[in-house]
Amino acid sequence: MPLNHSFVLDSRPQGQASVENFKWVSAETPALQEGQVLVQHHYLSLDPYMRGRMNDSKSYAVPQALGEVMIGGTAGQVLDSRHPKFKPGDQVVGMGGWQNFSVVDANVPGMLRRVDTTHVPLSHYLGAVGMPGVTAWYGLVKIIAPQAGQTVTVSAASGAVGSSFGALAKARGCRVVGIAGGQEKCDYVVNTLGFDACVDYKVHSDYVSLSKALRNACPDGIDGHFENVGGMVLDAVMLRTNAFARLAVCGMIAGYNGAPMPMANPALILVNRLKLEGFIVSEHMEVWPQALSELGHLVGSGQLRPRESVAHGLASAPEAFLGLLQGKNFGKQLVKLV
Amino acid sequence: MPLNHSFVLDSRPQGQASVENFKWVSAETPALQEGQVLVQHHYLSLDPYMRGRMNDSKSYAVPQALGEVMIGGTAGQVLDSRHPKFKPGDQVVGMGGWQNFSVVDANVPGMLRRVDTTHVPLSHYLGAVGMPGVTAWYGLVKIIAPQAGQTVTVSAASGAVGSSFGALAKARGCRVVGIAGGQEKCDYVVNTLGFDACVDYKVHSDYVSLSKALRNACPDGIDGHFENVGGMVLDAVMLRTNAFARLAVCGMIAGYNGAPMPMANPALILVNRLKLEGFIVSEHMEVWPQALSELGHLVGSGQLRPRESVAHGLASAPEAFLGLLQGKNFGKQLVKLV
Repeated sequence: MPLNHSFVLDSRPQGQASVENFKWVSAETPALQEGQVLVQHHYLSLDPYMRGRMNDSKSYAVPQALGEVMIGGTAGQVLDSRHPKFKPGDQVVGMGGWQNFSVVDANVPGMLRRVDTTHVPLSHYLGAVGMPGVTAWYGLVKIIAPQAGQTVTVSAASGAVGSSFGALAKARGCRVVGIAGGQEKCDYVVNTLGFDACVDYKVHSDYVSLSKALRNACPDGIDGHFENVGGMVLDAVMLRTNAFARLAVCGMIAGYNGAPMPMANPALILVNRLKLEGFIVSEHMEVWPQALSELGHLVGSGQLRPRESVAHGLASAPEAFLGLLQGKNFGKQLVKLV
Repeated sequence: MPLNHSFVLDSRPQGQASVENFKWVSAETPALQEGQVLVQHHYLSLDPYMRGRMNDSKSYAVPQALGEVMIGGTAGQVLDSRHPKFKPGDQVVGMGGWQNFSVVDANVPGMLRRVDTTHVPLSHYLGAVGMPGVTAWYGLVKIIAPQAGQTVTVSAASGAVGSSFGALAKARGCRVVGIAGGQEKCDYVVNTLGFDACVDYKVHSDYVSLSKALRNACPDGIDGHFENVGGMVLDAVMLRTNAFARLAVCGMIAGYNGAPMPMANPALILVNRLKLEGFIVSEHMEVWPQALSELGHLVGSGQLRPRESVAHGLASAPEAFLGLLQGKNFGKQLVKLV
């Protein structure tokens, strides 16, 4: 059996996460038991939710255990199988974690899914045609539920969730306005992703200023918003909402480190009769087949061309992850392992 | 025609509202035109929403015009009628405003409603069996939608909305916990209104402290909350919410005067997958018949015994209104005019 390298969580962050929180561990992969599959990971997905799992406090889900391999989505190839439904060479996605190989009990539902890479590159099953894409779909379709002609906005617009959100909303006839950090990302959001406009939050020092820029980009106000960031961006969007706007709350990345980030003006929830709803896509597995089908079609037909930010080699994972938390990635953050 | 006295809005408040914002005006009531009804008001309802209307800024609805009679719900008796559906002696509720008499164009739908005072006292049609009661009903039934056995909370629990909310929630098998200001109100909420517990927010100086008291009163966490106040109370409740809790946002009285009140920890919307929804009951007229029917039954059968705080004479309205904004009332605030 091949030698496996992995990162385990070695300590919990005090404030900002650092590379010292992760420990490199090497061990031989165990022999397969009946029903198990050996997968070689080609790509590891890095996602903001992982930061929440590193804390011991109440968050999305149970905390990541100390000394265990860091959780994470993976896409790869079956090397060996003792399960009748998988054979060597199959392309698969799963939750293999921060390591080169995983031994998966394929009898547990949802642990391993075979994918077709004829029209969709393997790595996209970790992004637009995976968890981030379904996340965008759920927020747009199940919470915002926009009508054609309405204006919807999304923060972190150049990322995996944001770019999927844009394509899904354009397909429904919405005016789609992104919020992103920096001119390069904003240009990409408009020119490549096809958003109607994009606002650079980095040139604004407070939410009132950002809100004025949003007013120019959204002359008819905002009917729906997908929040990946929180903090100043959410405050600015709330000021521009129309009556009965719906806000899907998916990320509060700005608040992960240190003290809670307040919301500036919650009275707007009443004044504009807003609906805000937080969600985690893994709690809504019933929508995945429908969402993945639509997302696969958008990618296969070229209507959604997601960008990737690829780090090379497992050893680069901690640095790439910390960069993601600081918004240094440009598109879906992956680690290429093979 | 009788001489009418009224209060008009004379100036908009800078910060706190004061009695100087209102001006006393007297004039003879005009002669009735075809389709009009002359109503003598017996009760004027005072409600927090009126403070929002006094501002010129965007709020619930269009601002109250300067020089016009202050808006307000009224219950009274028909004195004279040139409309076939109303006759002298009819008991009616409407939006007659801060004055002794009103001339109502009864052809406009929803302007005047005849009520039956056999089992429900006239004044209660401004409270439990009126707008405040329907407000509680909408938040509980349409937003919180609790299951039997779940825990629901409400701020300003001794008030018109809060007491109705409690009776409606108890009828659905919920554990109901109030939040109110002072021991006397809390005792009333538990002993007379039949809540399971009540927390006195006035003995807590910050939301973390209030939240600990809520933990004791809600050992199974909070599944639904009706917010009449905002600020520290909402912050404390959010800390104790269970996953998928629903929060109906109906009042942000604490933020009306001066600067916006921030929400301490909006990341909880995501962490606990909360739904927050602001609403104004006048935008949901379709629920009124069903809600009023249930509320009338609860009052008629004695399951809901709402308390009233009654000021006497129109001249007392401004002081009573300012007291309401400071939480000095105990139960539904009315002005008795006859």
